[in-house]
Amino acid sequence: MELIKEIKTMQKISREKAVEKKTIGFVPTMGYLHEGHLKLVENSVKENDITVVSVFVNPTQFGPEEDYGEYPRDLERDLDLLRERNVDYVLYPAVEDVYPEGYATYVQVEKGTDVLCGRSRPNHFKGVTTIVSKLFNMVKPHRAYFGQKDGQQFLIIRQMVDDLNMDIEVVACPTAREEGGLAMSSRNKYLSPQEREAALVINRTLQKAKKWIEEGERDGWEIKKKMEREIRAEPLATLDYASVVSRESLQELGEIKGPIMIAIAAFIGSTRLIDNVWLEVK
Amino acid sequence: MELIKEIKTMQKISREKAVEKKTIGFVPTMGYLHEGHLKLVENSVKENDITVVSVFVNPTQFGPEEDYGEYPRDLERDLDLLRERNVDYVLYPAVEDVYPEGYATYVQVEKGTDVLCGRSRPNHFKGVTTIVSKLFNMVKPHRAYFGQKDGQQFLIIRQMVDDLNMDIEVVACPTAREEGGLAMSSRNKYLSPQEREAALVINRTLQKAKKWIEEGERDGWEIKKKMEREIRAEPLATLDYASVVSRESLQELGEIKGPIMIAIAAFIGSTRLIDNVWLEVK
Repeated sequence: MELIKEIKTMQKISREKAVEKKTIGFVPTMGYLHEGHLKLVENSVKENDITVVSVFVNPTQFGPEEDYGEYPRDLERDLDLLRERNVDYVLYPAVEDVYPEGYATYVQVEKGTDVLCGRSRPNHFKGVTTIVSKLFNMVKPHRAYFGQKDGQQFLIIRQMVDDLNMDIEVVACPTAREEGGLAMSSRNKYLSPQEREAALVINRTLQKAKKWIEEGERDGWEIKKKMEREIRAEPLATLDYASVVSRESLQELGEIKGPIMIAIAAFIGSTRLIDNVWLEVK
Repeated sequence: MELIKEIKTMQKISREKAVEKKTIGFVPTMGYLHEGHLKLVENSVKENDITVVSVFVNPTQFGPEEDYGEYPRDLERDLDLLRERNVDYVLYPAVEDVYPEGYATYVQVEKGTDVLCGRSRPNHFKGVTTIVSKLFNMVKPHRAYFGQKDGQQFLIIRQMVDDLNMDIEVVACPTAREEGGLAMSSRNKYLSPQEREAALVINRTLQKAKKWIEEGERDGWEIKKKMEREIRAEPLATLDYASVVSRESLQELGEIKGPIMIAIAAFIGSTRLIDNVWLEVK
């Protein structure tokens, strides 16, 4: 496994792999890897000749009041985990190389980015689509792997890839979960044992909403109201949103139909957590 | 020479050329080709194994009051001209394939795009950087050729390519000129014989400004004032702007120094024309 810090070096390697007709699988991460990331990595290793994982905590997707500075980092541990999974290259660029002085270009999806997480994190997805575009140009992958936990992010990236004619297959992988159902996240590290217990309310509520729909409920506002009530009943939780949205438009649905996502974001103590469930509703 | 209408077909060809280690030169155009375009094409054919020319009148770079509908088109003539120059592929995608229903993604350079042409054409450069990004993803070129006539456009595209880590060399080629010095443009077609004569004031004024600087003038505002006076003296011309800007920041310069661009935009009758001169000032 090779650790690459220079963007130009990565591009040179990717050009060489194209000549050799090797397929490149890519897993972009912010590091501090958990089982969820490693599942993406395993899928990439299985489905491609070469796997590249990037580790880069991207400043432009954090708001001014958010946890960019404190976001957990542990490169040595990450490298050990990736080496064990037979990753070929780890791209670890310096922030000043990714965003040099005078940097001015942004990629923006103007649909579905101002709802759900985009409402409480105004420039978050602009930062995400920009860094993902940049990383794609560095790595030139054939396939890129994202976790379904960041459901809105995946749907926005898929829209970007389609719209900008990026010749890349984007793959969503199921959310990895801890015992009790809590979605794996690098931010779970922030939780006290008591908060970790309280955080289970998020997935529990999603599972209930799923059951209500499976039992025939089709009123999106009714489900929303009932989910909100569940989250608010947990003293350590502060609701950000609970929504039933179309996976195509990301807009909330009055009548539940088609490919949908049930999504919740809530602060548990001061830690913001998200989770979601996908359903096809006839 | 092959005419390609399907985006996926173009991408497949480009992937194959990469495997064969062929370099791809790319000339994006809106068609209705003139000597200026053909110079770009000739340079590309000389410097690359394969040359791709796109012909696409891009709606997103025209304002609602602008000439998208009337923009001159003549594909058969364009194809003849390109065949004669040994172009390999002409990409001619349908507008509904380039911007399908629900299209939502834009690439934007947030520096130098609200000045000069960006001031009178508010979303113009957003449309340009978006379509150029898309075309780059369709063609996957090693080198892309642009005319220096669209000086601001070139500088913005160069910024985008650097910022987004596009692995592409962008090349600016000197402006082709008609007799008398008028910069070649597909829009020259709109000019009456009298207007064509009047349009010479643009380049004549640029040449004067160049001379003033070469003779020692370093006051950008003074040059600007004198250029404005020259354009206003031509009864058929309506000044849009006359500016001396840095080629790095695209901002107007009080003290002229470094890599600069002297740029003029003016309406001759109802036709908007632009031209510029580049200088290195010690």
